[in-house]
Amino acid sequence: MQFPRKLQLATDLYQLSMGNVYLNDGKAGETAVFDAFIRRNPFNGGYTVAAGLEQMIDYINGLAFTDEDIAQLHHYHPEFTGAFLDYMRHFKFSGEIYAVPEGTIIFPHEPIVRVKAPLIEAQLVETTILAIMNHQTLIATKASRIVEEAGDGPVMEFGLRRAHGTEAGYFGARAAVIGGCAGTSVVETEPMLDRASMGTMSHSFVLSYDSEREAFEKFCDYNPDNAVLLVDTYNTLESGVPNAIEVFGQYKAAGKITGNYGIRIDSGDLAYLTAEARKMLDDAGFTDAKIVASSDLDEYLIRDLKSQGAKIDSWGIGTKLITAYDSPSLGGVYKMAEIDGKPKMKISNDPGKITNPGTKKIVRFYSRDNGMALADQLYLEDEVVDDTKPLRIFHPIHTWKQMTLRNFTAKELLVPVFVNGQCVYDKPSIDEIREHLQEEKRTLWPTYKRMVNPHVYHVDLSRKLWDLKQDLLDEADVDLTDGEPPFEDPKKSKVNRKASR
Amino acid sequence: MQFPRKLQLATDLYQLSMGNVYLNDGKAGETAVFDAFIRRNPFNGGYTVAAGLEQMIDYINGLAFTDEDIAQLHHYHPEFTGAFLDYMRHFKFSGEIYAVPEGTIIFPHEPIVRVKAPLIEAQLVETTILAIMNHQTLIATKASRIVEEAGDGPVMEFGLRRAHGTEAGYFGARAAVIGGCAGTSVVETEPMLDRASMGTMSHSFVLSYDSEREAFEKFCDYNPDNAVLLVDTYNTLESGVPNAIEVFGQYKAAGKITGNYGIRIDSGDLAYLTAEARKMLDDAGFTDAKIVASSDLDEYLIRDLKSQGAKIDSWGIGTKLITAYDSPSLGGVYKMAEIDGKPKMKISNDPGKITNPGTKKIVRFYSRDNGMALADQLYLEDEVVDDTKPLRIFHPIHTWKQMTLRNFTAKELLVPVFVNGQCVYDKPSIDEIREHLQEEKRTLWPTYKRMVNPHVYHVDLSRKLWDLKQDLLDEADVDLTDGEPPFEDPKKSKVNRKASR
Repeated sequence: MQFPRKLQLATDLYQLSMGNVYLNDGKAGETAVFDAFIRRNPFNGGYTVAAGLEQMIDYINGLAFTDEDIAQLHHYHPEFTGAFLDYMRHFKFSGEIYAVPEGTIIFPHEPIVRVKAPLIEAQLVETTILAIMNHQTLIATKASRIVEEAGDGPVMEFGLRRAHGTEAGYFGARAAVIGGCAGTSVVETEPMLDRASMGTMSHSFVLSYDSEREAFEKFCDYNPDNAVLLVDTYNTLESGVPNAIEVFGQYKAAGKITGNYGIRIDSGDLAYLTAEARKMLDDAGFTDAKIVASSDLDEYLIRDLKSQGAKIDSWGIGTKLITAYDSPSLGGVYKMAEIDGKPKMKISNDPGKITNPGTKKIVRFYSRDNGMALADQLYLEDEVVDDTKPLRIFHPIHTWKQMTLRNFTAKELLVPVFVNGQCVYDKPSIDEIREHLQEEKRTLWPTYKRMVNPHVYHVDLSRKLWDLKQDLLDEADVDLTDGEPPFEDPKKSKVNRKASR
Repeated sequence: MQFPRKLQLATDLYQLSMGNVYLNDGKAGETAVFDAFIRRNPFNGGYTVAAGLEQMIDYINGLAFTDEDIAQLHHYHPEFTGAFLDYMRHFKFSGEIYAVPEGTIIFPHEPIVRVKAPLIEAQLVETTILAIMNHQTLIATKASRIVEEAGDGPVMEFGLRRAHGTEAGYFGARAAVIGGCAGTSVVETEPMLDRASMGTMSHSFVLSYDSEREAFEKFCDYNPDNAVLLVDTYNTLESGVPNAIEVFGQYKAAGKITGNYGIRIDSGDLAYLTAEARKMLDDAGFTDAKIVASSDLDEYLIRDLKSQGAKIDSWGIGTKLITAYDSPSLGGVYKMAEIDGKPKMKISNDPGKITNPGTKKIVRFYSRDNGMALADQLYLEDEVVDDTKPLRIFHPIHTWKQMTLRNFTAKELLVPVFVNGQCVYDKPSIDEIREHLQEEKRTLWPTYKRMVNPHVYHVDLSRKLWDLKQDLLDEADVDLTDGEPPFEDPKKSKVNRKASR
């Protein structure tokens, strides 16, 4: 067992540098609230699949600094005081963490993880929480998109060799299975996912034998329940498929193929080759032989191939999934929302970068008629949501966009994970997480799940939260055209007016 | 110490499935040669920086299967025979590995790693070697491109929160430093890289104080040698820079800033803001204050900002480097070149996918006049290269493209790493690897280092290797228009003619 790996130093130096100031300045104990959230759905999509919570929990549970760690910090950082190092030596997370369960569908600006803890602790955990959340949420979302297009055909995650190292392959495979993949090729994941890893054979296997036919026979000899033969080493339709058909004939007749069998095609025009191969297999009587396709597939190519009549029963997805190739970073951030009882927000001239202040909760509204999600709203934590009467909600930026919800139920999405430093969360199994996502997707109208140009799901602010935000903006009184045209030299007088902030 | 992590199961199932066949079929001991190489330079660039060898060595040295591993394989894979599991229980790598040292510049189709071992062993190590090589080589190459554009300004790697998990951040930081970055923010890397991690402060630090001015003062109190203040929390030119200037004045006068100091700008128009900030700092007498810029930077934006007069002393690079955003997968492959003394090649209708057969070495030719690299040539291992007389080389596909080398020296790039299963390689330090790359880059004409549309460096084949490849192609006698137009139903007669391959 190699995971969970200890991650206490898998962080950015500035978390410690700031901790050193906070501790020595007597600020370390002020209660702070931070939100981890995304600003955009990845892949230009309409939704995002939260993942990684289990690894964040393992991280927090294992968060302690060894003597070796302290010696390292002392050696490389003379700026760290003895008091700070002593604090670190006895560090234990004592705060509260709320998060959305893995497999939950979330949208931009919604806290995926909310940390409320003494400032020094809440700041310290930022980088590691983000690294875990950004990675797994990204891959789970990509997998969900791919699985959506693949429809009934199972999707297998095959990308380890192209992952950003072996751990990215390991946890990427986990996220892929959460997102809906049937399985992964990564052997190391078997205990974690409690399912057998999957695979067929490589071109080198075929090359290592004197003939393709012999390679196929030998493979069937030892894989009677998974006799899937790679048919494109020499020539798919002239050599690979005919050889496979002959071997299937011989081995089926002898009762030596007892389970799943078929072919895999990993190159060439998959629409043409799979359609032709299907005909050849059917003509030979092997209508139950499966056709597996791989070769730089993603959701776009899957849709194109299907629309062109490809005959593919299952899909092996590598690079494009495990690296989230077309959008390889989620961009989740971790922003201070409150300190010492005072709500805080980051101000920016980019409206999408202005954060939401205060300790918040996410409420999702569902229709009582059909169970479909209607909209989400962010509330301040102490607000009470009454789902017994109509509710008027409005867009936080385009405030004239309003709608009235009637006959709805309300559900809070954030659940307690750590309270007073203790984990209070029962981790679900991977299958429960996977099924949770499928339920979530069933409540989401297709308009939000469309691969290209989906409709934007409503995430509104309660009136109380919106007012708080406006008040803080007014109070801040900053010029939000910082560094935008028209350009002029900053006037000394202006500078003096503002510099006392 | 958590690394090296044991990676024996960080592999694709099919490596084990094929091993099960090889072992039971009596083929496991046939000597096989595999090459790991790339088919294209990433980022549409002209060169690639090899990296990751140290972690591959750690992997091979730790390659053994525990009782727990064997129990797992037995549990999930009834197809694995007792003989195979017994073999795995006593597995030890006994082969030979040659590789190019880390920091070496390599080009498409050149073996970065060459494995010669009993078939079952050589096959087993494929996935893990590729995962390590693909990741670190990709990031080192990206870093080299960024550092090239940054010129004299040091580049700091800051991307952990956007990496594909914490291990990708850890080894990605290593690769970034190999590629030329001055350092990284990742604290965990300090023992590995033997250098202090780097950083400044976050927006939340500034927000956590009642005023920006107070936050700056407190930071300086505890960071006298690295007083770099983040000035864009409220308004860069009206608040941040003026406050920083006042604090610098006060703290310098009191002798409380004793080392590096300056400002960091993380948003807005960096060209305008840094130029204005530079003027303000200079006017206040702080001509030695440094300006650090960050915010979604990559080599393209660095060049644009510099060309527009940005005044930036050092660069913090996050997402775009650690995820290799614009080309997030290297695509390195591992192909069989020889089995049981017989040269092998993968045939494809895509000429770039046809591999080079046989056990090969890479020779780089340098001019004796100026030390610059002239071209590379792949040779069969037993060929002798004579650099005392003129050498005619030719392009492997466009064979009419020929050139004669005169007055040159020849250097073999592959070096022995494992012999008879024993590591024979002295691992260089990270600084030696870093310096090796800088030496390599000095021998490479700028035409190959251009960021956009670089010239293609020559990688030719020796006449003997070229002949071998042609002979194998002739011998294979396959139709290389597999699945390409014109489409017709495969004729039964044709099928029968070929199916005995």
